Order: sequence, then structure tokens, then C-alpha cells
Amino acid sequence: MNRWLWPLTGVFVLASAYAKWQHLPELVLFLLSCAAIIPLAGLMGRSTESIAARVGPRIGGLLSATFGNAVELIIGIFALKSGYITLVKASITGSILGNLLFVLGLSFFVGGIRHPVQRFNTSAARSNAGMLLLGVGVAYIVPAIFAGSAPGQSLALSGTTAVILFLVYGAGLFFSLFTHADLFQYITTEEAKEGHWRFRSAVIVLCVATVLVGVESDWLVDGVRAVGQNLGWSEMFIGVIVVAVIGNAAEHASAVWMAWKDRMDLSLEIAVGSSLQVAMFVAPVLFFASCLMGHAMPLLFSWPELASMGAAVLLVIILMIDGESNWLEGAMAVGAYIVMAVGFYTLRG
Amino acid sequence: MNRWLWPLTGVFVLASAYAKWQHLPELVLFLLSCAAIIPLAGLMGRSTESIAARVGPRIGGLLSATFGNAVELIIGIFALKSGYITLVKASITGSILGNLLFVLGLSFFVGGIRHPVQRFNTSAARSNAGMLLLGVGVAYIVPAIFAGSAPGQSLALSGTTAVILFLVYGAGLFFSLFTHADLFQYITTEEAKEGHWRFRSAVIVLCVATVLVGVESDWLVDGVRAVGQNLGWSEMFIGVIVVAVIGNAAEHASAVWMAWKDRMDLSLEIAVGSSLQVAMFVAPVLFFASCLMGHAMPLLFSWPELASMGAAVLLVIILMIDGESNWLEGAMAVGAYIVMAVGFYTLRG
Amino acid sequence: MNRWLWPLTGVFVLASAYAKWQHLPELVLFLLSCAAIIPLAGLMGRSTESIAARVGPRIGGLLSATFGNAVELIIGIFALKSGYITLVKASITGSILGNLLFVLGLSFFVGGIRHPVQRFNTSAARSNAGMLLLGVGVAYIVPAIFAGSAPGQSLALSGTTAVILFLVYGAGLFFSLFTHADLFQYITTEEAKEGHWRFRSAVIVLCVATVLVGVESDWLVDGVRAVGQNLGWSEMFIGVIVVAVIGNAAEHASAVWMAWKDRMDLSLEIAVGSSLQVAMFVAPVLFFASCLMGHAMPLLFSWPELASMGAAVLLVIILMIDGESNWLEGAMAVGAYIVMAVGFYTLRG
Repeated sequence: MNRWLWPLTGVFVLASAYAKWQHLPELVLFLLSCAAIIPLAGLMGRSTESIAARVGPRIGGLLSATFGNAVELIIGIFALKSGYITLVKASITGSILGNLLFVLGLSFFVGGIRHPVQRFNTSAARSNAGMLLLGVGVAYIVPAIFAGSAPGQSLALSGTTAVILFLVYGAGLFFSLFTHADLFQYITTEEAKEGHWRFRSAVIVLCVATVLVGVESDWLVDGVRAVGQNLGWSEMFIGVIVVAVIGNAAEHASAVWMAWKDRMDLSLEIAVGSSLQVAMFVAPVLFFASCLMGHAMPLLFSWPELASMGAAVLLVIILMIDGESNWLEGAMAVGAYIVMAVGFYTLRG
Repeated sequence: MNRWLWPLTGVFVLASAYAKWQHLPELVLFLLSCAAIIPLAGLMGRSTESIAARVGPRIGGLLSATFGNAVELIIGIFALKSGYITLVKASITGSILGNLLFVLGLSFFVGGIRHPVQRFNTSAARSNAGMLLLGVGVAYIVPAIFAGSAPGQSLALSGTTAVILFLVYGAGLFFSLFTHADLFQYITTEEAKEGHWRFRSAVIVLCVATVLVGVESDWLVDGVRAVGQNLGWSEMFIGVIVVAVIGNAAEHASAVWMAWKDRMDLSLEIAVGSSLQVAMFVAPVLFFASCLMGHAMPLLFSWPELASMGAAVLLVIILMIDGESNWLEGAMAVGAYIVMAVGFYTLRG
Repeated sequence: MNRWLWPLTGVFVLASAYAKWQHLPELVLFLLSCAAIIPLAGLMGRSTESIAARVGPRIGGLLSATFGNAVELIIGIFALKSGYITLVKASITGSILGNLLFVLGLSFFVGGIRHPVQRFNTSAARSNAGMLLLGVGVAYIVPAIFAGSAPGQSLALSGTTAVILFLVYGAGLFFSLFTHADLFQYITTEEAKEGHWRFRSAVIVLCVATVLVGVESDWLVDGVRAVGQNLGWSEMFIGVIVVAVIGNAAEHASAVWMAWKDRMDLSLEIAVGSSLQVAMFVAPVLFFASCLMGHAMPLLFSWPELASMGAAVLLVIILMIDGESNWLEGAMAVGAYIVMAVGFYTLRG
């Protein structure tokens, strides 16, 4: 797949620039910038990994943990700037649901077709289970219920929640990179087998790709209204499905590929780790960014979003807590994702 | 117990026919047809098992998985025909709660009186845990919350959910009968020890009993209004408690009997398997049947039903996920059932 | 710490009596009686343990299980007498949250700083997990949803729930002290190492401390209104945080101390056992007491309380079900507690 990243990037970046320059319809620009971001996200991912591999496991781990969802963050900031608050929150929801149910489900399913039972590290799975319940269940659902009883206080509550999520996410990094690094050794060892780029090339690719993702995100956000008018999709549906998919597509492909090769620990690390990163790092950063921009976005999600996230967290905890997976478990998670995706589609009215 | 099935069936079928012929009060006809369905359901269950035992484990497994809750389905179709939509949904809820909390709880309790700790297959328990969360938690609770935000779309959502439930239920059968049949071997082996009827007798009994259940269901449904007026029971209470109990009584007795004999895997298979069958097969079939009849029944339950099902699923998952049971765990499940039953009784107003 | 109990008790009991006698401002009396109850609760705890140690494990176990949260009960009864129903329910919520999240979290965190991984008895943890789901999740959340649909019936439902909680709590004692006492042997053995007071001294201390707690509770309740006016704290915040903390402070300290000494089974027994006792024994007793007093308090909590308790129960179940803890799990629980405490603070309006 990696062989295709460069030409795809070139084609879609140029095509979207041409569409912008020629003032082609906004829907066309939207679709082309979506198409450009997918391989750009792949390049950012590979260059981050290459840099991480050179700077040693600890700083590398920190790098991956902060840059791993940079595309989400960039699109989110441009969308916030244009006032698309529903879209930003929906893309957070969509990333969490997509990673937990669709990517993990597809990994379990595809891996399970080839291997009857696949095993993975249970202590990592259990640590992640607690983080998911705290970072998604407690931190998003509980404040929403408080806010229903004390509507004027939602910013204070979102601020506290964002700080706590930040601190616990940081504590989790400290745990996995410093105090209990030995528990997570197996992932580093596996990853080391991958071929990486040179340090200098990786840094240059990362910088250029980041700038291009910013430009394309700007164009993408400009087209959201046009998409709503032409295709009848709601801001929430665009956020939950479209933005979330393009921000994570490259990552998704590699999680499924790892599962096919029976490297389930890496597959889980990508899918669950990425959900946690969005919930506990990207979402708080976007909250603080929105405060700096002057129109604060409280971290209060709609009930369909909260119910979907809560159900996804519980289902994934049950599926992964025994340290084993099979294709049926994958089918369950993908089935749950489809029910939710159709649900968000019906909200278009 | 089996010795009593025939005479009980004869007595109550004749008595209810006499009541119908003599135009006795509808309440009497209701009670007699309830009494007739219980042993008829027992005969249907035994004949299905006997047929299943002759046709080999795979087709037999498919047969049990489709005919196991035929009584529910027949009563449901007659109730739908008369427009008792609340009753039909309540009987689905009641079957799930009754099997999960009352039957499983009583099995754990009765078995636990004789055996301090009872053990059962953990991989089946964990697979069932995922199915319960998907089939009851996700598929019923999440769409209800979406429907609250997009009221006009509930049929589209129920249709999607029904199809997904159907497919995942089918996938579960394929998993347990084909790709991972070895994991479920222990149940087949245990079951083979039972005495079975001859193939031809079993087919005849199944056909006759099915027709009689249909007739009795028709009479039972006719009496629902009279019961409401005479006893003050709501349609929901009749559905959750009365219909659910008579549809499952024979099965319930055998689950508890298996637990007493320390054959917990069979006991769980009956209780949890039956809940899953109602949630993922009977409910979708009734939904499609209602669409064909012209007055569609969305699979949207009331909040008391959803809360009870959600709580029941989580409690049962926690009780069974360690692969061990004792009498106290049984008491917890039965206690939860009583709280819910009283709750449904208070809704009579 | 124990060395300080006596002088602290003396100082604060005398100071609060002086404040009462001199008609000092109610806020001062409130703070001094809070300060007096903390060491008095410690004395009651130690004397109960000493008596329990002399009368053998079974009667001793029953004693601890009924007197362990006597302070909660006494404050609750005085608050009921003055009609502070929100305060009483909030103190039940606060005890459950404080024990489950703050005390258990701090124990995991403090113990985890010294010991990389701490292990505890998994069968006790799983039994407690079921009890927590039943006693808090099912018994409080499900009736609240029924009451929303049948508002007139909340007392009937609370009464049933209270009786069921009582019976299952009693069944749990019978289980741990009689039928399955061997499973819980490890706790008794560990506890026996502690130094205890003489029987007669312990009985005298218990009686005097109980009377003094009653007097101080009366003064404390008198000051609640003044605290609301002077500090802007709501009845709910005072109940969830202040009353819950002073009723459990002595116990809390010893749970954390046990974790530091790597005696996690005792630490869990204090934190989780105390939550269960409040939910399944203290709350029903207060409900029946309120009925006797003539202004019945239905066991129906506000949505923020229910959401917090539900989330706390699920999080703690996931953290303890694997029988292992580390400092990060502690940080997660404490983080969840802080989010909730801030949430209750924002409800002051």
C-alpha cells in the first residue's frame, strides 16, 4: 500500500489545487480535498513513526502519542475557526466509534478468517478498558447529565474534565513509557521490524505534509455547507462518518493488515490507542483552542453521540477483556457500527 | 415432569375448547388457554429436540435455533393481528428478562444449594456476553435514543437493526455449528444422553402441537382486554410477566433441573441462548411480520423496558464471565427480577 | 494515627459544646461538630472491631456489617428528623462515590507507588462486582426510570427495593460468614494481627462515642442552612462531599494505610464493603426510618447522582475484576471522583 502513497498524494493535491484555482463547484473541491487528505495522513503517520524509531522508545512514544492524530486536530481547528462546532464534536465521536467498532471489528473479522483464535496481551487490554471507561464513559456522559441539571455551568465542567483527561492521559504515557515500560515492551519489539525512513527525510515529509493537510482542511471545511445542500447530509453525519474516516483511513488499513498477519497487539494498539488519544488528548486540545478563539466549544455531546460512545466502549471492553478474538466478535463490532452509522444518517432532517 | 405433559395438555386443551364453545367469560378462556399453552410448549420443545437429535448436529442446531421459541412467535403473531403492539413488545422484554434473570438466577440458586461452586465453559460465556451486549444493549437501547432525536425515522432504523440482528444471529449459528463447532462439542455430547422420540412421532407431535398453540394463542389474545378490565393488569404487565412465563415455562423447568444435576453448560445454553434467540431472531421476525400485516411495529421499547434489559444484561455478564456460579449470585439475579416485576406492576395505571 | 484519636476527640467535642453554649455563629458550630465527628467515628470503628474480635468471626462479622457505618446512619436520622431529604440522599450517594472512587483510587495509587503491581483475591472481587451492580446499578437506577413513567407509585417501588436490598445483603452475610466462609478466611487471618482493646472498655467507648456522635450530628444538621447561606454550598454538595467525608474519614485513612502495606484484600474490603453496606443496609434502614417518622423519603435519586453512581460502579468493576491494581488505575478512579465532585459543586445554583 505504501508504494501508492506518493502518487496518490500528488494527484489529489494537484487536482484539489486546480479545483480551487478554477473555482470549480464547492462539492468537487470538498471531495478532492477529502481524497488528498487520506494519503497525506498516511505520509504523516509514516514519517512520525520513522522519527519515533530514531529518537528512542520514550521520546518516540511521546511523539506518536501527540502527533498520531494530528490530522484530526488540524481539520478540527479549521472547522472551529469557521464555527462548525457540531461538526468538530461529531468528528471526535466518529473517530472514537470508527476506531473502536469499525477498525477493531474489521481487524478481528479479517484476522479471524485466517486464524481461528487470536490472542493478545491481557494486561494492556485491561488497562485500556479502564482508560476507555474513564476517558469516554465517565468524562463525556457524566458531565452531560450534570449540565442538564445546571445548564449555566457547562464551561466550568468541560474545563475541569478537559484538564483531568489531559492529566490522566499524561499519567498513562508516564506509566507505559517509564514506570511500567516492561509491560509494553512487546509492542516496541514488534514495531522495530518495520522499515523506516531516514531522520532528515522524515522530518521534511512531516513538515510539508502537515502544511498541505492544513491547506486541504481549509478547503474541505469551506465545502461543508455545499455538501449539506447538495447531498442532504447533516453536519453531524459529515462529522461522524466523512471527517472521521478520512482522518483515520491510512491508520485503519494498517490495523487490519496487522490483524491479518496475526500481530494483534499492534492492531489493538492502533485502534484502541487512537480512540483514547482522540478522547483524552485531541478533544481537550480542541476545547482549549476553542476557548482561545473566543467561541468556546463545551465538551457536551448530543444524546445519540453519547449513547453510541457508551455502547461502543462497553461492547469493546467485553470483546477484548479475555485477551482473545475471533471472526464472530469482529462481526458483532461491525454490526454495531452499521446500526449507529444508519442512526446518524437518519438524523439528517 | 415429562410424564405429566400428555395428560395436562389433554385436560387444558379440552377445557379451553369447552369454555370457547360454551361462551364462558373471557377471563376463564384466557386462564385456560394460558394453562393449555404451557404443556403444549413442552411437547413442542421435546419433539424439536428429538428431531434435532436424528438429523445430525448441524441441521439439528439450526432447527433448535429457529423453533426453540416458536410459541413466543405464534402468540406474537396473533397478538400483532389484533393490534396489541405494546403486548408483543412487552412479551419480548419479558422473555429476555425472565430467561436472563429469573431462569438463570433460579438455576444458579438451586444448583448452588447442592454444589458450593459450579463451573461452566468460559469461552461460551464470553461469546454470549458479547452477543447479549450487541443484541440487547446496542440494538435496542441505541436506536431508541436516536429515535428520540429523529422521531420520523424509527421504521428505517428498526428495519436496519432487525436486518443486522438477523445477520449476526446467523453468523453466530455458523460460528457455533461450522467454523468453531469444536468449542461447543461439550453441549452436544451432554445432550445425546437424553432419551428421544422416534423421528416420525416427533414430526407429528410437533405439527399437531404447533396448530394447537396457534388456536390457544388466538383465544388467549381475545381475553387480554377482559383481563385488563377484571384484574386491573396493564397490557405491558400481561406481556412482560404472563405471556413471557407461559411461553417459556417448560424450558425454564428444564434449565433449573439441569443446574440441580450440575450440568451448568446446558442450563446456561437454555437460559442465555433463549434470550439471544428472542432478541435476535423472534423480535426481527415479528417486526417483518408486522410490516407485511400493514401496521408496522417499530422495535422501540419503553424506557422501563430498556432500563430493565440493559441492567439485566450487565448483571448477567458480570455473574457469568468468570465461569463460576454460587447460590448468592442466583439470589442477586432473582432479586433484580423481583424489583423489575414490581416495577412493571406499578405501571398498570 | 490512633494515638491522636483521643486528644482530637476531646478538643473538638469540648470546643463544639462551648460554641453551642455560647451561641456562637451556626457556621462555627457546623465546622466544629464536623471536626468532632471525624475522630469519634474512628473511636466507634476501633471499638466495634475490638468487640468483633472477641465474639468470634461470625457474630463479629455481623457486628461490623451492621455498626460499620453507624455514623452515617446517625447523621442521616437527625437530618431526616429536620426534613433534609436531599441531604440524606446526597450523603448516601457521597459515601458510595467516596468509598468506591476516592478511597479505592487513593489506595490503588498510594499502594502502587510502592509496589508496581498489587494483587488481591479475585473471587471476592467478582462477588463484590455482582453485588455493586445489583445494589447500586439495578436497585437505584431501574426504579428511578420506572418512577418517571408511574410517578404515583414511587413509595411502593422504594419499599420493594429496600426489602430486596435488605434480603440480598443478609444473604451476602450468610454467604461470607456461613456457607462460604472459607473463601473469606484470608481477611479474618490478616485482621487478627491487629492489636485490640479489652471487651468491657470497647463496649463503654462504643456507647459513649455513639451518644456523642448523636449530639454532634444534631448540631451539625442545625448548621446546614447557615452553611448554604454563608458559603453558597447547596444541600446536595454538603451531602455528597462534606457529610460523606466526615462519616468515613477514619475508615478512609485505614484503607489507604493497608494499601501502603500491600494488604490489598483488607483495603478493598473496607472501601467496597463500606459502599455495599451504605447502599444495601444504611439506605434501606433510613427509608424505613423515614416512613416511621411520617414523611417518607423515596429512594429516588437525582440524575446526576444516578449517573455518577452508575459510572463509578462500572469503572470500579473493570478496575478490580482482574485481581490486580497499579498506580495508574488509582489515578483513573481519583480523576473520575474529581470530575463528579466539581459537577456536584456546579449544581449549587
